[in-house]
Amino acid sequence: MATTVHTLAQLAERFDLRLHGDGGTAIAGVATLANAGAGQLAFLANPRYRRELERTSASAVVLHEADLEVAPVACLVAANPQAAFARIAALYDPRTLPAPGIHPSAAIDASAHIDPAASIGAFVSIGARSVVAAGAVVGAGCVIGEDCVIGEECELVARVTLVCRVRLGRRVIVHPGAVIGADGFGLAMENGRWMKVPQLGGVMIGDDCEVGANTSIDRGALDDTVLEEDVRLDNQIQIGHNVRIGAHTAIAGCVGIAGSTRIGRHCLIAGAVGINGHIEICDRVTIHAMSTVLNSIDQPGEYSSGTTLQDHRMWRRNAARFKHLDELARKLNAFVRDQPQ
Amino acid sequence: MATTVHTLAQLAERFDLRLHGDGGTAIAGVATLANAGAGQLAFLANPRYRRELERTSASAVVLHEADLEVAPVACLVAANPQAAFARIAALYDPRTLPAPGIHPSAAIDASAHIDPAASIGAFVSIGARSVVAAGAVVGAGCVIGEDCVIGEECELVARVTLVCRVRLGRRVIVHPGAVIGADGFGLAMENGRWMKVPQLGGVMIGDDCEVGANTSIDRGALDDTVLEEDVRLDNQIQIGHNVRIGAHTAIAGCVGIAGSTRIGRHCLIAGAVGINGHIEICDRVTIHAMSTVLNSIDQPGEYSSGTTLQDHRMWRRNAARFKHLDELARKLNAFVRDQPQ
Amino acid sequence: MATTVHTLAQLAERFDLRLHGDGGTAIAGVATLANAGAGQLAFLANPRYRRELERTSASAVVLHEADLEVAPVACLVAANPQAAFARIAALYDPRTLPAPGIHPSAAIDASAHIDPAASIGAFVSIGARSVVAAGAVVGAGCVIGEDCVIGEECELVARVTLVCRVRLGRRVIVHPGAVIGADGFGLAMENGRWMKVPQLGGVMIGDDCEVGANTSIDRGALDDTVLEEDVRLDNQIQIGHNVRIGAHTAIAGCVGIAGSTRIGRHCLIAGAVGINGHIEICDRVTIHAMSTVLNSIDQPGEYSSGTTLQDHRMWRRNAARFKHLDELARKLNAFVRDQPQ
Repeated sequence: MATTVHTLAQLAERFDLRLHGDGGTAIAGVATLANAGAGQLAFLANPRYRRELERTSASAVVLHEADLEVAPVACLVAANPQAAFARIAALYDPRTLPAPGIHPSAAIDASAHIDPAASIGAFVSIGARSVVAAGAVVGAGCVIGEDCVIGEECELVARVTLVCRVRLGRRVIVHPGAVIGADGFGLAMENGRWMKVPQLGGVMIGDDCEVGANTSIDRGALDDTVLEEDVRLDNQIQIGHNVRIGAHTAIAGCVGIAGSTRIGRHCLIAGAVGINGHIEICDRVTIHAMSTVLNSIDQPGEYSSGTTLQDHRMWRRNAARFKHLDELARKLNAFVRDQPQ
Repeated sequence: MATTVHTLAQLAERFDLRLHGDGGTAIAGVATLANAGAGQLAFLANPRYRRELERTSASAVVLHEADLEVAPVACLVAANPQAAFARIAALYDPRTLPAPGIHPSAAIDASAHIDPAASIGAFVSIGARSVVAAGAVVGAGCVIGEDCVIGEECELVARVTLVCRVRLGRRVIVHPGAVIGADGFGLAMENGRWMKVPQLGGVMIGDDCEVGANTSIDRGALDDTVLEEDVRLDNQIQIGHNVRIGAHTAIAGCVGIAGSTRIGRHCLIAGAVGINGHIEICDRVTIHAMSTVLNSIDQPGEYSSGTTLQDHRMWRRNAARFKHLDELARKLNAFVRDQPQ
Repeated sequence: MATTVHTLAQLAERFDLRLHGDGGTAIAGVATLANAGAGQLAFLANPRYRRELERTSASAVVLHEADLEVAPVACLVAANPQAAFARIAALYDPRTLPAPGIHPSAAIDASAHIDPAASIGAFVSIGARSVVAAGAVVGAGCVIGEDCVIGEECELVARVTLVCRVRLGRRVIVHPGAVIGADGFGLAMENGRWMKVPQLGGVMIGDDCEVGANTSIDRGALDDTVLEEDVRLDNQIQIGHNVRIGAHTAIAGCVGIAGSTRIGRHCLIAGAVGINGHIEICDRVTIHAMSTVLNSIDQPGEYSSGTTLQDHRMWRRNAARFKHLDELARKLNAFVRDQPQ
């Protein structure tokens, strides 16, 4: 891994940022404000870390104009420091994408079509009629079933499963352990036993989506499960069959979404939220962590449920009272009504 | 995939359903009420979708007698429309099970026994003394450890791990990413450090069970972890060591069940429920989504915990009050008691 | 699997336990109090199972001095019965570690270094510059990316992924499906679209850690994600980028920890707890199951949130009242204030 070096002036010009201080400062890498040293560039976006700016040992910092006054070093001023830093950091990313070609160990069905400019890793299995487009990378140990499409420049990092009828748009990133297109949880009860309902749909994932490690997205029962473009899913998420998620929505780890629910565009769903099936959530809704969403939401805004942490013994008493909260409220109301004013 | 066509009269006779309308209607596929077109059969089971019946473009619909009056097209009348539709839909499922035989890449221990009528996929590894019965399918990338038994007509879709001492009954379906038989979380604390407690048990899974994608079922510490017959587990579930789950119980995604707990028969556990260890839940208990179950349940019925979603600012105030709910209740009680009536 | 037999006297001497009863008792295996039979040793550590001691059919029991009086059979008395039993049980564990060597199917980069005393299983892929130390076992289907280090006597059971820049100390155990070192969930919003923030850090895991099945630990954005020594993670856990977990902390299944949070030493986090990002939890904190931790904790102790299970209809009424709890409290306070005393 040869070290890349750019001067601050070169970075400013390349990414259209305002230079403040010595443009000749050599930047050989990126780091956090707290840990950066000589030759490293840091950034400040979250005000929580502003105090670290004052004592940073970085050679330069990307920041917002408002923070310039307390910066002890050369700076690149950006309207969106996080986005600017993301672009610069990519220059210092040591990773190299694998060369195109098919690893000799891969097991590829004769009816599958692999573009010569795609890369297929070791121990990859690809089923009948599946297609891998140019520039796509299918990492080691992935299993691609029948009738799947992997679009241009997708990256399936490693050990990803696309079960069947899964279509990925362009530049979709899927992290290890993710399972896309498994059977939806469709059961009918008959005479005291469960009968499996065939899951005949697929999964459609739009351009620029990202699917986290060990996340599961079931395929539809009849229609498809759909992620529109630029949907970002973190790890350990469960998406039931026939869910539809709107463009630019981001969902944090451990969220579960039950079947046939529709989530709008530009929503933010925080960690471990649980969302009921067969409901609709409109655009631009934020759900705070660990909330339970039982009903549809038709107004943009921020929503929460649950209670907050406290000492366990105090909590026990309060939780015991919660079980009689309705009774308590009735008692108060009756008393207020009956008292002479 | 050649298209299968059946007439409505043929379907009625084959599945013992009452025909209403033109028996010559040709059915080439199945779809939802909302999206079905000519030649497609839809169904109505959930009353939530009744309005879609009136405007469906399906050629025919499977439904309950009570919905017949608003149906605009030919119908198949069923006592259990969902079950009837499941049977019909299976006729139109394009999937083909792989032919029996062992993929040349598979790594199979010399002491394992694979029935000639079983199918073993690419990059499958099978350990010492394990047995795969007739008609079973072990999909690509599965890892089967030592001393496992995979019963007749089981299907391990792909990338499933059976760690060791896992016995699957007949017709068990296991979806990708599932890990069955990993070490239980057994630890002893000694002198400020954790010591691992050997996990010497196994996992016993009954006939007709289903295990979802990325679900984990640990093996027992001494005795086995047990799923009785026809237990249905969705995705991303965690089952601790020595749990026992009764027949015909269904568990939705993201549920966690701690060690040594016993769940009854015919229970329904909704999504993301958390169940404490060392407790017992009797038969026919329904737990609503996101509930916390700390103690044993000895009465059938429906149970819940938690609070419901609201505007974030309002929620903050209410959650702050919850931390003093016991105090509030005491204050009310004292005041009521002290007031002259 | 030949049966190992030890006399009770031999076990007492080997593990420095006090023998009570017939030292010649032959012990051929271990079992639970409830299910043990002749020739088997059981143990009692959890007082919940004390009644089972009185009617056990075990040939001998490991227990605490205080339980000796009700024991119907020969005993080994231990200050810490669970730890003593764990040591004895290991003698009866039938598992055999694989012999050193590299399975012929493994795909190993020319620049990787595998110690001759390590064992590499079938269909394992190892990337550039990665190192596997002596005594380490990398089970079937593991994918090890670039620049990883697997320390002495580590065990990656099967189908584990180390994405890149993951360093495991000595004796680390990783269960199947675990994904360590995937991209953290780093996104910047710009002009209504998400931009990916490169994740340039790694993961550092200390000696004697354990990572459960289907657990995910993301690598850091700039600095590393860190588990200090002897951290024990159960299954289905999500650890965000740049989290740091202190030594000897144990975390139960389904927990989610958001990015950049620091957890202290000797903490106990129960199942399905959700922990916010960018907070600090001090040493020796216990969090009860299903709790939500939004803010830093600077006092050791036990903490909880949430409400407890009750009949669903009653719960509905109470949950409806919770949404107006602040109003209720204000009403009570106003009324108390206004009443003549």
